[in-house]
Amino acid sequence: MKVIDKIKQAEKEGRHYWSFEYFPPKTPQGVQNLYDRMERMQRFGPEFIDITWGAGGSSADLTLEMVATAQSVYGLETMMHLTCTNMPLSMLDHALKTAKECGCQNILALRGDPPKGQTTWESCADGFEHASDLVKYIRKHYGDYFCIAVAGHPEGHLDNPDKHDDLLQLKAKVDAGADLVVTQLFFDVDLFLEFVKKCRQIGITCPILPGLFPIQNYNGLKRVISFNNNHVPQHIWDALEPIKDDDAAVKEYGINLTIDFIRKMWAAGINGFHIYTFNLERSTRLVLERLELVPDMESVKPLPWSPSLTSKRAKENVRPIFWKNRTKSYIQRTETWDEFPNGRWGDSSSPAFGELDGYGVSLKYPVKECLDMWGTPTSMDDISVLFAKYCMNKVPAIPWSAQPLDSETETIRQRLAAINLLGYLTINSQPAVNGAKSSHKVYGWGPKNGYVYQKAYLEFFVSPTDLDGLLAKIAKDPQVTYFAVNNQGDLRTNTLNDHPNAVTWGVFPGQEIIQPTIVESAAFMAWKDEAFGLWREWSSIYEPQSPSAKLLSNITDTWYLVNIVQNDFQDEGGIWRLFDLEIDGEISRKIRRSSIVLEE
Amino acid sequence: MKVIDKIKQAEKEGRHYWSFEYFPPKTPQGVQNLYDRMERMQRFGPEFIDITWGAGGSSADLTLEMVATAQSVYGLETMMHLTCTNMPLSMLDHALKTAKECGCQNILALRGDPPKGQTTWESCADGFEHASDLVKYIRKHYGDYFCIAVAGHPEGHLDNPDKHDDLLQLKAKVDAGADLVVTQLFFDVDLFLEFVKKCRQIGITCPILPGLFPIQNYNGLKRVISFNNNHVPQHIWDALEPIKDDDAAVKEYGINLTIDFIRKMWAAGINGFHIYTFNLERSTRLVLERLELVPDMESVKPLPWSPSLTSKRAKENVRPIFWKNRTKSYIQRTETWDEFPNGRWGDSSSPAFGELDGYGVSLKYPVKECLDMWGTPTSMDDISVLFAKYCMNKVPAIPWSAQPLDSETETIRQRLAAINLLGYLTINSQPAVNGAKSSHKVYGWGPKNGYVYQKAYLEFFVSPTDLDGLLAKIAKDPQVTYFAVNNQGDLRTNTLNDHPNAVTWGVFPGQEIIQPTIVESAAFMAWKDEAFGLWREWSSIYEPQSPSAKLLSNITDTWYLVNIVQNDFQDEGGIWRLFDLEIDGEISRKIRRSSIVLEE
Repeated sequence: MKVIDKIKQAEKEGRHYWSFEYFPPKTPQGVQNLYDRMERMQRFGPEFIDITWGAGGSSADLTLEMVATAQSVYGLETMMHLTCTNMPLSMLDHALKTAKECGCQNILALRGDPPKGQTTWESCADGFEHASDLVKYIRKHYGDYFCIAVAGHPEGHLDNPDKHDDLLQLKAKVDAGADLVVTQLFFDVDLFLEFVKKCRQIGITCPILPGLFPIQNYNGLKRVISFNNNHVPQHIWDALEPIKDDDAAVKEYGINLTIDFIRKMWAAGINGFHIYTFNLERSTRLVLERLELVPDMESVKPLPWSPSLTSKRAKENVRPIFWKNRTKSYIQRTETWDEFPNGRWGDSSSPAFGELDGYGVSLKYPVKECLDMWGTPTSMDDISVLFAKYCMNKVPAIPWSAQPLDSETETIRQRLAAINLLGYLTINSQPAVNGAKSSHKVYGWGPKNGYVYQKAYLEFFVSPTDLDGLLAKIAKDPQVTYFAVNNQGDLRTNTLNDHPNAVTWGVFPGQEIIQPTIVESAAFMAWKDEAFGLWREWSSIYEPQSPSAKLLSNITDTWYLVNIVQNDFQDEGGIWRLFDLEIDGEISRKIRRSSIVLEE
Repeated sequence: MKVIDKIKQAEKEGRHYWSFEYFPPKTPQGVQNLYDRMERMQRFGPEFIDITWGAGGSSADLTLEMVATAQSVYGLETMMHLTCTNMPLSMLDHALKTAKECGCQNILALRGDPPKGQTTWESCADGFEHASDLVKYIRKHYGDYFCIAVAGHPEGHLDNPDKHDDLLQLKAKVDAGADLVVTQLFFDVDLFLEFVKKCRQIGITCPILPGLFPIQNYNGLKRVISFNNNHVPQHIWDALEPIKDDDAAVKEYGINLTIDFIRKMWAAGINGFHIYTFNLERSTRLVLERLELVPDMESVKPLPWSPSLTSKRAKENVRPIFWKNRTKSYIQRTETWDEFPNGRWGDSSSPAFGELDGYGVSLKYPVKECLDMWGTPTSMDDISVLFAKYCMNKVPAIPWSAQPLDSETETIRQRLAAINLLGYLTINSQPAVNGAKSSHKVYGWGPKNGYVYQKAYLEFFVSPTDLDGLLAKIAKDPQVTYFAVNNQGDLRTNTLNDHPNAVTWGVFPGQEIIQPTIVESAAFMAWKDEAFGLWREWSSIYEPQSPSAKLLSNITDTWYLVNIVQNDFQDEGGIWRLFDLEIDGEISRKIRRSSIVLEE
């Protein structure tokens, strides 16, 4: 969707709106962290996000990859920066086509900074000299497909001492076909309002989105203003002087200053703002919270997972639960599908899952970091304790989940940790929810005035012996269904048909029932290869004959991957009765041995 | 499905099973009453029902129609009797083909009684002489399509004094291809058990289903036994003698006698029984209840409505709520559909509803009876009171509903009556249900261990003025959706899209959510023609210029048909807050004027 249409809609409804800017991180780990952050920040309800252009080969590719991922995996409406620096036509076209293919409809067209090592800007061979040339080119070759934004300079462009001429340059960019102006960051609202006034005077009528930067620390501010040549009013310097060595105090000041700016602009009828996040999360969150801009659940979470924004997947509204913590792998493994489940999973035998290439079986952290997190386990107890620590937020990731546990898992965190100590190594779960409001902070999704439901779900690895014991208990509870499979593909289950089991659903006014998450055998069999593959990946960070490698290989070869659903969603504790949590001698012993604290 | 397969399954599971026999009634009213009874008796869980063959033209057609209706409208596995009496090959073929077309897979092949007025049996030209010929013919021309049953005579056939020869005749019928023996009724279990023993001795190995007749009254018994030449043991006569003039006592005796018979047969390993209902309901119900043969909800109600047993509709599991009280019309108006909604209603614009011919707009009772029930209303109050009386079970039918209100309406009966007195003439409704067990006696349906839900629904006619008042209230409740339309097709609604609204759904272990009943605009527009047409039908029973005809025509021409859904199914009383039930001065006045008693 075009950002300009979203802005027009917001203006029409007379509501406030906001957007976030990110840049491509330098390391793969940084990229992974940023993805997690973007996913979390999606809940703050930005109208769109934008990703800066990484000038030069691999960095440009990263921008393209991030745009595609934000659109398809995280369902964020994304704007891609595109600069003229060192960009011959062929590369511009490649970038525009790639953006178009992944469903991105928004380009921020820039001239760009001079290439590294140069101080003055020069166009490259077969490239453009002005952003307005780029705007014209996009309009000519892509018609109305893209919403085009251009940069505005409330304090004038660095390279242009003539401020009026600078305004005329902006007018030229808009006249060339831009829909929207996003300004550079500034620290003086009066200056911005004056800039808007002058723009309107010379006939620039499109929306002008002010760019804001919550100050993070004193030196950072100095760097930023030297780079942009920003004017910072004296009262800001005065306020910062006594706290400049106290980062927390500076951050707090930056948050409140940003809030003041926004309130002042609101008073002047400017409804939108654009935050230069510098890939940080906290200040942005606090600004929004203190302004009570808590987004409507309806607009933020149409489904319990983020729907993809690529047009091919537009109607997709059912997914298996297995990839909950590895959405990117699911998107990749299903990207060849012609049709996506809409309304119900239907005949599960038809869609084939793609091969385990690319993202599928790989650890999300470099080896050194994995070793730091996971150490060198030499016994099953070491592994149990590691999984339990992850549940208690003492270890940031496990191979099956690069992020900490969901907030919805809060209520079952203790019990998850406990069953890990008993030898059930959990990799996915959800608590039972019996008709929470669709606006519920943790469980809510979908339109207003609805109710959402979940069946309790647990997925874990377990030894064959413990599996036998568990299955004996399951046999006594008609409400529990399960699938268990080992790496060789030996399947055990108590479901007699191929029907998918809906484990998350919602009931809304004037609609059919929405059932966006299911458990289903064909998908589970595709997932198990990935799930066991991650054990192998983990073992590969150790020397082949080391005790750790042998331990992990043994699990890979002999253990079972199990999922269980407690179908009685009204019995919220039911799933836990399958485990002897009362017999806690074993658990206590392990807690004493480890550094886990199971807080009450 | 073949009855023999159902019986084999029951035998395999070692459970008791039973079936009911009906005959085609003589009047249209009798047919309608029997349909209602068959629908109710379906809940008693018969493995199948059978319908006797109406020898002769229109009566035979009625058998065929009833078989088709039982299969497709009421979803009862049906066995059709077929006799050789006056049936040339062409007519036999017509009957078999018609049965096959409507999905009936079961034939009870009989020689039949002599034609009326004759005392001895003669075959007709181009017809068969023996039931075994008919069996052979069906097997030859229809292969394995039909399950074929034949009649057994535990006391010997009337026309054959040689009992051993009679057994050989039965053997011949089985050898000709019959799957199953259903016996004539008898009053001596020992005699039946002896018969089975002899059958086994001469090599009849198929199931033999005993036919039982709960005695209804003394003279009826006398007629039956003189017709069948039955032996009735002396102890029965002795028991009946002192009570023979007390019908209730005879019925009670008949019930207990039948129970004794069944228990005795169970003890001898006979698991099934076939009840000659003579189109009556009560004795059969009490026999089953006292034997604690309360059927499993799972087998009786797979959905809240009875799924059709015609193969074309096999996957149908979603229907609009509007035809709830006129299922037959719905079946007819959708019979040209190539595909039926499965899982969800989906794109509602594609399926076109058939014309309003046949069953669609006609009163289910003869004019005289309608006049008896509905009188000659001359004011709106008369009409209101009539509708209210229907809600209170004081009037047996209204044009939109040939049966009394559902048992599920019990909890809202008073309130329904009250809003009718306020001028909202209700023709359809369901109370809100927030997660009742799927085994719930009134609301339950679907597999075991599930939960069922309903949104409160009301459908009624209302004057344009009262509609305005109601819509003003609805505008204040974001949880209420409605459609209102007059006979001219002017539609008013607060739903902004064409999505169907699921108003009944169920959540079951290991399954997707089932949503079998919806409210949807295209279906509503098809239904409104039928709903308004019934006002016209009603008015046509009066003289064209009479006050009653004018009153009803005026409603037809000016009033609105309205449906409202209270989407908050957790707020069970919510829908009633739209009506000023507290302001009961109006209601009290009407209650005083009428003979309605709104019991508390």
